[in-house]
Amino acid sequence: MSHNSFGHLFRVTTFGESHGPALGCIVDGCPPNIPLTADDIQVFLDKRRPGQSRFTTQRQEPDQVKILSGVFEDDRTGGPVTTGTPIMLMIENVDQRSKDYAEIRDKFRPGHADFTYQAKYGIRDYKGGGRSSARETAARVAAGAVARKIIPGVTIRGALVQMGPHKIDRTNWDWAEVDRNPFFTPDARAAKFFEDYLDGVRKSGSSIGAVIEVTASGVPAGWGAPLYGKLDQDLASAMMSINAVKGVEIGAGFESAALSGEENADEIRMRRGKPEFLSNNAGGILGGISTGQDVVVRFAIKPTSSILTSKRSISAQGEDVDVMTKGRHDPCVGIRAVPVGEAMMAIVLADHFLRHRGQVG
Amino acid sequence: MSHNSFGHLFRVTTFGESHGPALGCIVDGCPPNIPLTADDIQVFLDKRRPGQSRFTTQRQEPDQVKILSGVFEDDRTGGPVTTGTPIMLMIENVDQRSKDYAEIRDKFRPGHADFTYQAKYGIRDYKGGGRSSARETAARVAAGAVARKIIPGVTIRGALVQMGPHKIDRTNWDWAEVDRNPFFTPDARAAKFFEDYLDGVRKSGSSIGAVIEVTASGVPAGWGAPLYGKLDQDLASAMMSINAVKGVEIGAGFESAALSGEENADEIRMRRGKPEFLSNNAGGILGGISTGQDVVVRFAIKPTSSILTSKRSISAQGEDVDVMTKGRHDPCVGIRAVPVGEAMMAIVLADHFLRHRGQVG
Amino acid sequence: MSHNSFGHLFRVTTFGESHGPALGCIVDGCPPNIPLTADDIQVFLDKRRPGQSRFTTQRQEPDQVKILSGVFEDDRTGGPVTTGTPIMLMIENVDQRSKDYAEIRDKFRPGHADFTYQAKYGIRDYKGGGRSSARETAARVAAGAVARKIIPGVTIRGALVQMGPHKIDRTNWDWAEVDRNPFFTPDARAAKFFEDYLDGVRKSGSSIGAVIEVTASGVPAGWGAPLYGKLDQDLASAMMSINAVKGVEIGAGFESAALSGEENADEIRMRRGKPEFLSNNAGGILGGISTGQDVVVRFAIKPTSSILTSKRSISAQGEDVDVMTKGRHDPCVGIRAVPVGEAMMAIVLADHFLRHRGQVG
Amino acid sequence: MSHNSFGHLFRVTTFGESHGPALGCIVDGCPPNIPLTADDIQVFLDKRRPGQSRFTTQRQEPDQVKILSGVFEDDRTGGPVTTGTPIMLMIENVDQRSKDYAEIRDKFRPGHADFTYQAKYGIRDYKGGGRSSARETAARVAAGAVARKIIPGVTIRGALVQMGPHKIDRTNWDWAEVDRNPFFTPDARAAKFFEDYLDGVRKSGSSIGAVIEVTASGVPAGWGAPLYGKLDQDLASAMMSINAVKGVEIGAGFESAALSGEENADEIRMRRGKPEFLSNNAGGILGGISTGQDVVVRFAIKPTSSILTSKRSISAQGEDVDVMTKGRHDPCVGIRAVPVGEAMMAIVLADHFLRHRGQVG
Repeated sequence: MSHNSFGHLFRVTTFGESHGPALGCIVDGCPPNIPLTADDIQVFLDKRRPGQSRFTTQRQEPDQVKILSGVFEDDRTGGPVTTGTPIMLMIENVDQRSKDYAEIRDKFRPGHADFTYQAKYGIRDYKGGGRSSARETAARVAAGAVARKIIPGVTIRGALVQMGPHKIDRTNWDWAEVDRNPFFTPDARAAKFFEDYLDGVRKSGSSIGAVIEVTASGVPAGWGAPLYGKLDQDLASAMMSINAVKGVEIGAGFESAALSGEENADEIRMRRGKPEFLSNNAGGILGGISTGQDVVVRFAIKPTSSILTSKRSISAQGEDVDVMTKGRHDPCVGIRAVPVGEAMMAIVLADHFLRHRGQVG
Repeated sequence: MSHNSFGHLFRVTTFGESHGPALGCIVDGCPPNIPLTADDIQVFLDKRRPGQSRFTTQRQEPDQVKILSGVFEDDRTGGPVTTGTPIMLMIENVDQRSKDYAEIRDKFRPGHADFTYQAKYGIRDYKGGGRSSARETAARVAAGAVARKIIPGVTIRGALVQMGPHKIDRTNWDWAEVDRNPFFTPDARAAKFFEDYLDGVRKSGSSIGAVIEVTASGVPAGWGAPLYGKLDQDLASAMMSINAVKGVEIGAGFESAALSGEENADEIRMRRGKPEFLSNNAGGILGGISTGQDVVVRFAIKPTSSILTSKRSISAQGEDVDVMTKGRHDPCVGIRAVPVGEAMMAIVLADHFLRHRGQVG
Repeated sequence: MSHNSFGHLFRVTTFGESHGPALGCIVDGCPPNIPLTADDIQVFLDKRRPGQSRFTTQRQEPDQVKILSGVFEDDRTGGPVTTGTPIMLMIENVDQRSKDYAEIRDKFRPGHADFTYQAKYGIRDYKGGGRSSARETAARVAAGAVARKIIPGVTIRGALVQMGPHKIDRTNWDWAEVDRNPFFTPDARAAKFFEDYLDGVRKSGSSIGAVIEVTASGVPAGWGAPLYGKLDQDLASAMMSINAVKGVEIGAGFESAALSGEENADEIRMRRGKPEFLSNNAGGILGGISTGQDVVVRFAIKPTSSILTSKRSISAQGEDVDVMTKGRHDPCVGIRAVPVGEAMMAIVLADHFLRHRGQVG
Repeated sequence: MSHNSFGHLFRVTTFGESHGPALGCIVDGCPPNIPLTADDIQVFLDKRRPGQSRFTTQRQEPDQVKILSGVFEDDRTGGPVTTGTPIMLMIENVDQRSKDYAEIRDKFRPGHADFTYQAKYGIRDYKGGGRSSARETAARVAAGAVARKIIPGVTIRGALVQMGPHKIDRTNWDWAEVDRNPFFTPDARAAKFFEDYLDGVRKSGSSIGAVIEVTASGVPAGWGAPLYGKLDQDLASAMMSINAVKGVEIGAGFESAALSGEENADEIRMRRGKPEFLSNNAGGILGGISTGQDVVVRFAIKPTSSILTSKRSISAQGEDVDVMTKGRHDPCVGIRAVPVGEAMMAIVLADHFLRHRGQVG
């Protein structure tokens, strides 16, 4: 069952709410003897951490991770390594603002999960969105850092390729640029534009959506499985499990619907004794199994539902009300989804690496 | 583990290859006392069955389903009902053409899974695509027919909304039209256009992609679960598990990236004592849980990779070759994906209905 | 979920009832390129097959298995091998006697699952016990035959070590003897005794229980996992999943409760450069992980509940009735549990071999 | 997958080592709106807690549990209730004695999991047994306390029924007595005897095994499932997953092998309009499904492997060595297995309650 777990051989189970004492995850199934310190994980958490620019929520969370189990400081190697047992990663919440929650306690914010949690469970932790808060993605990023360690030959990189209606110019693509701007976008000119654009959105108390692209290079041919254990299927599941994601596509994705068979087919030729694909409409996956090309996934993030404009809604008591969401939030929550998407890619690939090794050796 | 299984409480495990003696599935976890005959299933298989128009493959398969277990002809009710034990559904293959497979035995057809199956397993059943053939979707449709029985209050309908670059005009939408044309499209004018268009594609030995939309009405608020058991996540997984699917989106989907928070928020008002959403950008799902609105999913199908144009590829022996795929195939495999998408929607919803009942009662 | 499935990476899902058209299973996760024919499986089914002596039920079932998927007759190797895709194994029922079931339709036979199936599902297939019939174990034996192929270095052997209150003399143990008598017992003198003893039980219309021991030699140290993926735990689960099993023990089992720490500890010494245990109270498993010694499991089978003596019970309508079970049955169903126990051992070990390879390589 | 998880709809994932900073578990799938405080859990942890008499290890651990997520202090009800999201339970380790572990670092203690963990993973946390320590059972007890809340109509009670070779006199059975002696035994006379007996074992630096019986009253007929989701199968798996357990039996268990069909059959009669069984050899389970009688399971615990007598073993470097285990330990670890067995019974029943409700409603 997958209430709050993801993956099979590499399995992540997360816990925690936005305003509880802590959040985190248990990473189960990790191979033994992999060097792992909190610092290895912290570097990725720092990338996702809020409050680093004016373009993300001003909530101040250090997001310091602690490893509570599953590693052992071996006297002989001199550093902690994984032991094959469950790795517990904990992040304490620090900046739970003691504001008055009376308003959202009784009103369902449009676009948020308030209404549906209440409809399902008859109760909800309304403080900061509770379990449905984007803070949960910190646990994903921590788990993803462990996953990366399992597949060291694979390079995973994410980028923001669209903000609002504005797509980047892919001919400007420069991976090095991603770390130079607060938007994780590989197009320096787009980054400049986004700065003004998002300032406008932010100042008006509005929000905007985005599209994120995540690429994995170095995945060998053969990971994945037919039909119900497909690599693309698990990537779709992984990305859609992230808060606010409304669409996922692989390779040419929705564009492939418009293509003819001739245009879509990725031709193959031998190059230096190895198969080389001449294009990558498949996004590195055929029949659910990796081709050896880059695995490419894109996902759409809806605009943050917390906005300053008053919207029509209802109360928990079934009365018509108007709702306006004050307080800290990201004007474009898609930005911080970049390291989250990378983490989910890493988790899926680590799981499939182990699954492939299990079945085929 | 999900090699060849899908779902949790309602769980489908499929088997079979394109040119083997039979294919089918075991449906496990079905509630007891649900009337179920082969005819209940056959009606949906007939919709998916090939060879019904010139626009689908000319392979002649009656696709007659047999129920081998899990139902019992109760003397008192006079008809077969489910017993709560596994339901085995078998469809025998009839029209396995004894053609010469020497060509595709040694050559990897571009866009097909030939290369990746070989890379993964070191062997593949190359006859008609083996396990990667679209014939496997017959098992899904059969299982989907059982799933529908579990959620009788839910109406599931699919439609082709784009063929190649041509989108239908949604203002012409008429569900009744879907059954009147060979494309399962709800736009009568588009159907006319598609007839000529697809004839052209077919005659030139080419193929084209499509976009399918599946809607479920009558889903109550509260199905699904937070984060890793999200209803939209499982729908993404379900649709992406279908052969040739390259993208999945929920509600406004990729369009939502371009929306502002104000545009995207589905406002709510009380209407006759019940919550009513004033729009449905969410596609009936918030925070992974159903809102009570229509659940709306769309997926993109790539063009059939079997085309008459010669393309560059390599052989199993690692030599450059040219490949042209003769033989029977669908010029737009997306058409027959409509009943398949409906079936997967039914399977996901039946599973989540049981899961919700398990946790919440 | 495990309604009707067992195992994780090597996963078996069974279907079928005693008097339905067929029974069988889907074996999922099998590694590729393993030679596999129906004959490889049939030899084990023949061992379990009823009607081979006067000591088992007289129902005549050839139990011929058909492989419907998952193997491919490779032109180059000349014989069928597994492809890594699901292997469907089907056994058709032949000797469903068209007797009058009116009696057991309405009465709950003591010791049988009639009452509980009805209580759970509100319906049951009462013909020959339906899903609860020992016929289901044919599917296990078929799956076990596939499992053995995955772990060729492991030798799995089962034996009957107790019938009724009569334990065999373990000093007479001779594995070769197991195939020479109809009881699968390794003690030739006990076999002689059992012949008269069971004849008496059979002629009086009674039945008797048994204890079965299954041993696996050649399991390397390291299979299994801590705590919830323990090898002994999964063996306990496997054996207890067999009809009529009421107890399972590993190594010294219940006897170990009476031992002191000094008596129980299996000492170790190096022998020819390898660790050698000086005893095997652990049954080849410490901390859930194999030690490299023989893995030893025993399980108790209760007496067949079908007896000619009239017993007090109730009807489906809630009335006091008396029940006597005529018809074909095994006087000691434990005998045919020997190949079933072997099969379950094979399935558990194959699964753990793949799981170990997945996590540790 | 079940590396470190147990259960399906009610699912427990544990983490932590004996000498790490903390241990605990995530409880996933809990229904909402169940009142739950740390005190509700603490009462069961206190029962299992070490150092309460001279008959258990002298390690001093307060075993204070913290609830880090999954409950919410609802303003309206005035107390914390479950929200349906994952419940994280953490217990910090306090008394990790900073002794010199050099000896067990390099030597494999006979009967312990030292050798097998090393064989599997190539590394092990040797401090206090690491993951294989009985301390992990604290997490089970905490999860079991949550499980009990889900099935309030069920009463679960455990008892020690054998210590070493000494079985209690069942005619003296008095549940009230269980809480009056340090052995959790229901026979007051046996309790007296055990006091002297175990003092002798303890003073000689030896150890001894035990048999525990756990009973659940109030389980309605219908929980469980046929064959691979059997209630007895999951109980066998649950109990065998506890450290040091070597055997599990249900109802008459291994005794049933010696019974005739007539003796074994539990007859049924209507009593005050309800079915009543006249005996309970079945242990409350037929065909894997509960009968409505008491569910009865027994399990055997081997003697603690830590003893003061020197035993032959090998070192991690493959040399013959002698090992004697000094330090704190339980002379009869079976005593503290009583609350652990109760917890596992509760977890299995809570899971099956939810599973039954899912499938059958």
